[in-house]
Amino acid sequence: MEGAAVKVYGVASSPFVATVLLCLEEVGAAYEVIPVDLAACEEKAPAHLARNPLGKIPALEDGDLTLFESRPIARHVLRKHKPELLGIGNMERSATVDVWLEVEAHQFHPSAIAIVRECIGAPLRGRACDQAVVDENVSKLRAVLEVYEARLGRHRYLAGNNVSIADLNHFTLMHYFMSTEYGPALLGPLPRVKAWWEELAARPAARKVATFMPLDFGVDKKKE
Amino acid sequence: MEGAAVKVYGVASSPFVATVLLCLEEVGAAYEVIPVDLAACEEKAPAHLARNPLGKIPALEDGDLTLFESRPIARHVLRKHKPELLGIGNMERSATVDVWLEVEAHQFHPSAIAIVRECIGAPLRGRACDQAVVDENVSKLRAVLEVYEARLGRHRYLAGNNVSIADLNHFTLMHYFMSTEYGPALLGPLPRVKAWWEELAARPAARKVATFMPLDFGVDKKKE
Repeated sequence: MEGAAVKVYGVASSPFVATVLLCLEEVGAAYEVIPVDLAACEEKAPAHLARNPLGKIPALEDGDLTLFESRPIARHVLRKHKPELLGIGNMERSATVDVWLEVEAHQFHPSAIAIVRECIGAPLRGRACDQAVVDENVSKLRAVLEVYEARLGRHRYLAGNNVSIADLNHFTLMHYFMSTEYGPALLGPLPRVKAWWEELAARPAARKVATFMPLDFGVDKKKE
Repeated sequence: MEGAAVKVYGVASSPFVATVLLCLEEVGAAYEVIPVDLAACEEKAPAHLARNPLGKIPALEDGDLTLFESRPIARHVLRKHKPELLGIGNMERSATVDVWLEVEAHQFHPSAIAIVRECIGAPLRGRACDQAVVDENVSKLRAVLEVYEARLGRHRYLAGNNVSIADLNHFTLMHYFMSTEYGPALLGPLPRVKAWWEELAARPAARKVATFMPLDFGVDKKKE
């Protein structure tokens, strides 16, 4: 740990917030999680809107600098403490990391979160899972993961032979996705993606952050 | 112009491809557009899949480096030729640019492209505009642009007092959006966003790239 603790505003079980925590754990930076009560719509209250005008979590305070949106915050944490995870200083590596982080953001994420929302989120909210939404997104996600399988046949990680933010940013949503029946089913025929995921999940930072993400989003605990 | 011309694979009227061309024009880099025939599904053919395994446009070849997805390509072009547009070398500025580029990608873009697809794309394809989709996205986009209006009251550009990739990346989709009835209607009550847009559209690089983006996507020309 070094420097003053940064403040992370949000709920640690949110995959968006947990991605920030994963990066902070990866670099060994001191941090404090300041809870934002979503049930009370605290993310739309003036104090939080001053941090993030979009009224979402996470937000980060690092000294005088206030940031929002999980990927820019993750980039900032790594740029400050482990710039090699962004490929900084190597033009080709930086560009390749950016490509695969964009694939995570625009190809992997939309399908994976739709599946997680239907399979985990809906039942917790007393709503039936919309199987048509699940099926459509399982199909899209399969196609994306097949691209990963080919890519991981040529490189150990998505952006090359060293781990990068492009790999790390998959962890928190994959954690939830892999707890659905579709996770093991999709990864079964994709041995390289499976090995990549298992290595990612075994990183000390990932194991720690997984403890913040109970598979019921902490709902059962609140009921007790 | 300096260095060997980079190759941009795609169709210049695509807002994704045109964003890459805008950055190349901004930095004065030599480039060549290699057409990809979407009507013939050339983007899904092996030659293009070797450039972009997702089978989409644009892709870029810069010497031995092949990249895909418009935002990573835009970052690469600017990192190489005008790194100040990414805030490189200033930790706070880099992080702020990243935040507002993420807002463009995940808040502005999804709503703006939905409106453009319904209002411009659907009629060109002989399909009726889905007004419910338009109304929902106009409402979402208004909320995003109101956040911009407040932001632009404190800073000349989205990421501070100098233009950045976060501003530039709005240009091509805004170009199409502003040609719909909803563009002037949404910007009317937002004078700072209107002035920001007009300044953006007046940049020499933007004026040049606008000539590649006829408002009928070149459909009328093909029919002649």
